[in-house]
Amino acid sequence: MTEKRKKLAAIVHSGTLDRLYCAFILGSTATAIGMEVHLYFTFWGLKMLTKGGLERAGLPATYKHLEEQMKKKLEEMKYPTLHELLKRMKASGLLKIYACSPTMEMFNVKKEDLIPEVDEIAGATAFLDLASDADVTLLI
Amino acid sequence: MTEKRKKLAAIVHSGTLDRLYCAFILGSTATAIGMEVHLYFTFWGLKMLTKGGLERAGLPATYKHLEEQMKKKLEEMKYPTLHELLKRMKASGLLKIYACSPTMEMFNVKKEDLIPEVDEIAGATAFLDLASDADVTLLI
Amino acid sequence: MTEKRKKLAAIVHSGTLDRLYCAFILGSTATAIGMEVHLYFTFWGLKMLTKGGLERAGLPATYKHLEEQMKKKLEEMKYPTLHELLKRMKASGLLKIYACSPTMEMFNVKKEDLIPEVDEIAGATAFLDLASDADVTLLI
Repeated sequence: MTEKRKKLAAIVHSGTLDRLYCAFILGSTATAIGMEVHLYFTFWGLKMLTKGGLERAGLPATYKHLEEQMKKKLEEMKYPTLHELLKRMKASGLLKIYACSPTMEMFNVKKEDLIPEVDEIAGATAFLDLASDADVTLLI
Repeated sequence: MTEKRKKLAAIVHSGTLDRLYCAFILGSTATAIGMEVHLYFTFWGLKMLTKGGLERAGLPATYKHLEEQMKKKLEEMKYPTLHELLKRMKASGLLKIYACSPTMEMFNVKKEDLIPEVDEIAGATAFLDLASDADVTLLI
Repeated sequence: MTEKRKKLAAIVHSGTLDRLYCAFILGSTATAIGMEVHLYFTFWGLKMLTKGGLERAGLPATYKHLEEQMKKKLEEMKYPTLHELLKRMKASGLLKIYACSPTMEMFNVKKEDLIPEVDEIAGATAFLDLASDADVTLLI
């Protein structure tokens, strides 16, 4: 008998570099230890799933003055970019990405504007169904 | 035999339009699918439960420049206001709203300053008791 | 037979006064009712675990104008400082504090820069293991 996979379900509301890294590092660590990962992108998070979005992510107002320094440090560390982390998670076969449909309407985002890594356009019901059955639930 | 209702317990720490919408859309979707919803308002979130508070909610510093545009878009979409979403959730009979008592002292908020939708003034113990038994826990 | 302790596992990503108080009030309330508490500090949260960090915590850009007023009010209320709350939680024997190792590299934080209350330097796997088995999971 196989043990049921542990499951992480997170809402990604934030669209800033620091919070997206937090989401993607957690997500890729989770897939690396065999967890199923469900990331539901809404609001500013959803906006960053449009083509070129992840590449434009910066720090929030409170930490804006540290943005260049952080980006330089990440390069020096040869740390994977957000998009690389996303692709790595996808390659595991354990990640599913959801784009929040009401947010898409609010921000005039069309399906063809989204990066191809998005698996499904869905409303909050989809997240709640997943999260009700998950081991770890977070809002980022 | 009736199945036990699934339960969402969230701390609403944020007081900005984007995060309150996130909390209220999640909450109203949850009640719509028969989940029990417990929202514990603290800090900036609690402040917005004072009379007229929800109507004054704006975007955080990082996104302030998009505030007017977002408000206009929500009106065009005839999207329910925060207060309308709150009333809709309450009408389901599945939502309970808690106001954080230490925050009320810190911000000099009196019971009579709060909107009537608040069910209970309580400390963090109340939230932890609920959350320990919930299916989905989030901090917004 | 003793009942298994309830467990709270939270990621502390934020480094601002309002969010750290939220984390520490929740944490100390949880230990007070006998819960096991695991706080995993990353990004701005981790930075605040360096010596003198908690004492320097201020409000985020959105609420910066309220910082002095809030600090004065907390003093008037004789509210415990962040460091006092941390020590109180530690004294319970129920709190464990983790410092995120990749963040330490990114911010050039050495082990000896951290306050002595930190129990362990660890990666995200440690948090996910704990959280998978926790009753309440949050990201602050």
